[in-house]
Amino acid sequence: SKRYTITLLPGDGIGPEVISVAKNVLELAGSLEGIEFLFKDMPVGGAALDLTGIPLPEETLSIAKQSDAVLLGAIGGYKWDNNEKHLKPETGLLQLREGLKVFANLRPASVLPQLVDASTLKKEIAEGVDLMVVRELTGGIYFGKPRGFSTNENGEEIGFNTEVYASYEIDRIARIAFESAQKRRGKLCSVDKANVLEASMLWRRRVMAIASEYPDVELSHMYVDNAAMQLVRNPKQFDTIVTNNIFGDILSDEASMITGSIGMLPSASLGESGPGLFEPIHGSAPDIAGQDKANPLATVLSAAMLLRYGLGEEEAAQRIETAVLDALNRGFRTGDIYSAGNVCTFLVNFFIYILLP
Amino acid sequence: SKRYTITLLPGDGIGPEVISVAKNVLELAGSLEGIEFLFKDMPVGGAALDLTGIPLPEETLSIAKQSDAVLLGAIGGYKWDNNEKHLKPETGLLQLREGLKVFANLRPASVLPQLVDASTLKKEIAEGVDLMVVRELTGGIYFGKPRGFSTNENGEEIGFNTEVYASYEIDRIARIAFESAQKRRGKLCSVDKANVLEASMLWRRRVMAIASEYPDVELSHMYVDNAAMQLVRNPKQFDTIVTNNIFGDILSDEASMITGSIGMLPSASLGESGPGLFEPIHGSAPDIAGQDKANPLATVLSAAMLLRYGLGEEEAAQRIETAVLDALNRGFRTGDIYSAGNVCTFLVNFFIYILLP
Ligand SMILES: CC(C)[C@H](C(=O)O)[C@@H](O)C(=O)O
Ligand SMILES: CC(C)[C@H](C(=O)O)[C@@H](O)C(=O)O
Repeated sequence: SKRYTITLLPGDGIGPEVISVAKNVLELAGSLEGIEFLFKDMPVGGAALDLTGIPLPEETLSIAKQSDAVLLGAIGGYKWDNNEKHLKPETGLLQLREGLKVFANLRPASVLPQLVDASTLKKEIAEGVDLMVVRELTGGIYFGKPRGFSTNENGEEIGFNTEVYASYEIDRIARIAFESAQKRRGKLCSVDKANVLEASMLWRRRVMAIASEYPDVELSHMYVDNAAMQLVRNPKQFDTIVTNNIFGDILSDEASMITGSIGMLPSASLGESGPGLFEPIHGSAPDIAGQDKANPLATVLSAAMLLRYGLGEEEAAQRIETAVLDALNRGFRTGDIYSAGNVCTFLVNFFIYILLP
Repeated sequence: SKRYTITLLPGDGIGPEVISVAKNVLELAGSLEGIEFLFKDMPVGGAALDLTGIPLPEETLSIAKQSDAVLLGAIGGYKWDNNEKHLKPETGLLQLREGLKVFANLRPASVLPQLVDASTLKKEIAEGVDLMVVRELTGGIYFGKPRGFSTNENGEEIGFNTEVYASYEIDRIARIAFESAQKRRGKLCSVDKANVLEASMLWRRRVMAIASEYPDVELSHMYVDNAAMQLVRNPKQFDTIVTNNIFGDILSDEASMITGSIGMLPSASLGESGPGLFEPIHGSAPDIAGQDKANPLATVLSAAMLLRYGLGEEEAAQRIETAVLDALNRGFRTGDIYSAGNVCTFLVNFFIYILLP
């Protein structure tokens, strides 16, 4: 039987409760496929701050690096909101992404027929939406230097950051995006602001250069402001979107809200080699933490992505995805996606039932 | 009788045709209020490139500066898309904003009861949306230095830009936003990425400092990724939004699409003193240029903003806004906002009829 080591990073808010569901689901799906998991629970974010004084303890990163895949719950909360930058929970997450070198963040956003009513968009606009945002995750303005505070020539305080991309960073994320488009409907839209920013001009130039390696993919380019509009106007026009770190942050959240079920959306972050990082798109939702209200499906589906992209265990991944669809088909819903006519209950036990052979 | 000099910058694509409608409307509304206009037509953007080789000729800027207000159509088109940066139509627009020092861009986005069906959002989500995005327009990553192309220590090409704000730039846009919120429903939401970016941390700190001057305004803060989601989830929660140049570019376009009638939305860009710049939110739409299909209402309503914010001519501004509502109430629509049951025709003549005493 196969054995994998998984680092679990529950984090803050609803993180621990959704991770505990996903862990059960992984164990069960694994046992049905002859896979054994060794789980290591490590602190990150606010939980790590409270425990150790820093948001990403060295031990957490080194255990994560040595494992086969990393599953993260959520980080952040009001309690740490006014912390200085190096003591923010978010800084721990950014250090983790950087430390694992996971430069490619895959964020699928699709509208399930069962949940089309949960979208705020009209039914005819929302139904059939099935897109993937490929976000560059370890470069751009998130990590660019110089950054910080200073004073200008008039003695005024300034705050500054650097948006910067090197050609190799663009090339490697472009290749991931072209490959993702190949496996989907063969269409890639690269989003930038090349009419204003030099970093975007290089982005567009490199994406066009890499396109010659993928003649079967239809490439288009769109300015970020227009993309933000088109996602609302007609999200079905998109298959795969590739964009930089900050535009990807904004557009993937917008896209996920368009599906109406942000509590359902997983993500995978991958590097050239080494363990991938898998996490739900949603935040730590401190206001509902510990009340058994959180939708665990985004984390459960992140565990499925972990099996597929992180371990190559396609059968186990599909087992989980099928169980999620079964649960929804039977009318099980958490409050965030509940509408009249559904059975409303916490989903964890139901999963375990569905997954039984 | 009062006399004002207005610089008209038709620009590219549908720019000239919508400017010509707005000019007629200004003349008529003015004549009914005892106001005379002297119009000066000047080239900008692609039109200026074709004529003079540069996107903002010196004469255009100096005439604009000497006038009482500037009305712009739209700039850009496929023809110039691959131009080098200093020869892009967009560069002319940025130089114009910088040259006129119009740092505050007001972008109202409201859903008119007559047009609620034009939104892709469900009726109960879209109806009653009435928000104003106050975008910083002459700072941030659009203008920050250093910027350009270079090579890194490994000889790889890099492209880079600087996101930078000085405290005075934040203070002055914050004051405009607080004042705008005071005149509206008294709520201001400042959007930033203060969990990651130093430029945003300073932004948040200064907005909080300025808040003490406006105790009657209720201030909140939101991260930009969350704001992009909340605009889709529940746009009615917003009254006034204030944000930086690039986030404002993205969010104001998203907000305008939520109204479903981007062909209807005006904008005003104001400085400390000197003429304001008024322009529709929409682009140059080269694919429908010259076909009498463009919706002129965004430019007509920009002319109303010009009268109100640029010249202090409230009565004439209201005359135009009332005429627009009358035209819509009578069922007149351009194709972009047309739905069954409406009279569909080009609106210019109808305006002139409505405005007659
Ligand atoms: C928490 C924050 C630092 C993070 C980001 O901006 O990347 C989050 O918004 C995300 O998208 O994963
Ligand atoms: C044309 C472009 C430079 C411009 C901008 O990014 O500011 C436009 O998108 C706008 O919002 O007015």
